[in-house]
Amino acid sequence: MEPVAPTSPIETDAVIVGAGPVGLFQVFELGLLEVKAHIIDSLPYPGGQCIELYPDKPIYDIPAVPVCTGKELTDSLLKQIEPFGATFHLGQEVTELQRREDGRFDVATAKGTRFVTKTVFIAAGVGAFQPRLLKVDGLEKHHDRQVFYRVKNPAQFAGKHLVIVGGGDSALDWTLNFAQDGPHKAESVILIHRRDGFRAAPASVARMKELCDALEMQFVIGQITGIEEQGDRLTGVKVTGSDGVTRVVPLDVLLVFFGLSPKLGPIAEWGLALERKQVVVDTEKFETSIPGVFAVGDINTYPGKKKLILSGFHEAALAAFGAAPYIFPDKRIHLQYTTTSPKLHKVLGVETPTFDD
Amino acid sequence: MEPVAPTSPIETDAVIVGAGPVGLFQVFELGLLEVKAHIIDSLPYPGGQCIELYPDKPIYDIPAVPVCTGKELTDSLLKQIEPFGATFHLGQEVTELQRREDGRFDVATAKGTRFVTKTVFIAAGVGAFQPRLLKVDGLEKHHDRQVFYRVKNPAQFAGKHLVIVGGGDSALDWTLNFAQDGPHKAESVILIHRRDGFRAAPASVARMKELCDALEMQFVIGQITGIEEQGDRLTGVKVTGSDGVTRVVPLDVLLVFFGLSPKLGPIAEWGLALERKQVVVDTEKFETSIPGVFAVGDINTYPGKKKLILSGFHEAALAAFGAAPYIFPDKRIHLQYTTTSPKLHKVLGVETPTFDD
Repeated sequence: MEPVAPTSPIETDAVIVGAGPVGLFQVFELGLLEVKAHIIDSLPYPGGQCIELYPDKPIYDIPAVPVCTGKELTDSLLKQIEPFGATFHLGQEVTELQRREDGRFDVATAKGTRFVTKTVFIAAGVGAFQPRLLKVDGLEKHHDRQVFYRVKNPAQFAGKHLVIVGGGDSALDWTLNFAQDGPHKAESVILIHRRDGFRAAPASVARMKELCDALEMQFVIGQITGIEEQGDRLTGVKVTGSDGVTRVVPLDVLLVFFGLSPKLGPIAEWGLALERKQVVVDTEKFETSIPGVFAVGDINTYPGKKKLILSGFHEAALAAFGAAPYIFPDKRIHLQYTTTSPKLHKVLGVETPTFDD
Repeated sequence: MEPVAPTSPIETDAVIVGAGPVGLFQVFELGLLEVKAHIIDSLPYPGGQCIELYPDKPIYDIPAVPVCTGKELTDSLLKQIEPFGATFHLGQEVTELQRREDGRFDVATAKGTRFVTKTVFIAAGVGAFQPRLLKVDGLEKHHDRQVFYRVKNPAQFAGKHLVIVGGGDSALDWTLNFAQDGPHKAESVILIHRRDGFRAAPASVARMKELCDALEMQFVIGQITGIEEQGDRLTGVKVTGSDGVTRVVPLDVLLVFFGLSPKLGPIAEWGLALERKQVVVDTEKFETSIPGVFAVGDINTYPGKKKLILSGFHEAALAAFGAAPYIFPDKRIHLQYTTTSPKLHKVLGVETPTFDD
């Protein structure tokens, strides 16, 4: 863990938890009401599931978009919210949400970013994406010492005997990075994957095989079924091949790239009414059991709920209107249309066209 | 009125009233559940308000579409619903909705098209678009005899003394049609508009002014403030100019093109629970007070309702799921995703991509 920096909290009107498509559109709907938002995500980039799970797969049910990929959807939404200057706080999970006596909320992230906000919008989808763990008895106590699920500082692995597990782009990219000549070249690299087929860029796979042919690294087909230790140190992993034979592969460091999987995480502990791990909301404002906290998109539940992106968009619109009284207690908010309202044109940064009648 | 043709009714699972953006997206959501729909609109083309009121004006709040015109939105939706082969019945207002003893509905249009359907989706927006009337005392009794708001058969006006009122494309187009040499050339044409500025194509305005210069027609600036009659016949209109002077313009026929305005019309008489001329629905299925009849988009109301196109899209999705039990009483309907479901790919007519894991 990085040390938590003692910064002073950011005062704001709205914090959005989750930068998936619905969180991004929440920025837009708040923006139309002239509310600036801070948006937080555990992933290091916006897009949520769309980017993490299906960046290149086609989506057909975004209304008026006959087909787009998860990446294209994210890009369109980022373009759409550009005028609203939201502040992104990425690569950090929200850990804390607490109501103050004055009705505002203290929000904090794992990186120590703190906020005091009038309203909170939970758009956390299926939860925060966390690395999927390698489940082998006794491995956990070596986490962050010899076993890593993310590479933050590649220099610390240079000159070491590395074992890398996984078959996706992260596994292949780091394998090439450490096996080839360069500033972080390891003493040895062994890539382990359960089969001779990869979910990575074909060019990376081809390069990895070249390196194996040149004896610059090894590739082993099999699954890790146990570990070897000497005292407190992890000295090797037991790898069982498809032939049922198990052998020991020695190592200094084990890097695991099994992708990310979502976890509801700290949200479950904020005192929100939940139903089957979903946040219960009304259908008028999509407000949770805590006044001023709204939940939109896949994370919420109400009678009739379907986990559709287009439903999240509607929920974000109504939540913005529901939140306005907390932010502007003395202002009456009227629905205006982006096609005709000069005020919204100003907010959007576009010119109001003049029409002859 | 045209005579009502005695055809036998069309048996179907779903009738959608209104081919605006929400009605069109209702086709899509029903299509994903393998329900084929018939869709009816009073306008002679799909798109509803988007086409009638703002075909060329930009819309900024369609999620993931940073900007599009009403026409572009309509075109995208038409493309998106192409796989589902909905049948369009355009240029005809729905006049009748009646529940049968077997739970199905009789639906009929002003043109005599009849349906027997298991479910009905009212996506009628602000109502059916009707010509905006010229309000002058005593004019109404001449409607459809000497006063017309639509030209169905231009031949009937050939050789007549015509007065045309209005400043938009319809007014200008028909003025040119009747003033120029051609099969429908009128004996005389006088165009009346309240000011010397038009909402029509500049080329049409220029051509009209050429015809005036050539004494082929006249253009009069002013407003119609009264009529002249002889017995049952309308013989002229009184036109008051901006100088306050009123003069009489003689005529055989008066053509009025003041654009279209929406009317709730017959929907108000179907026995649906209404609130301020809006159809009351629940937020689980967007079902009305009549089981099997759903209302989506601007025409419905519920706590929190905002008249946003994106809300209509959400309502259409949930209404489709709400309707499924009436159409498939013995089938359990599960939510599937267009990105991953081979079944939905078949329905959409696209190939299921294969992904290596």
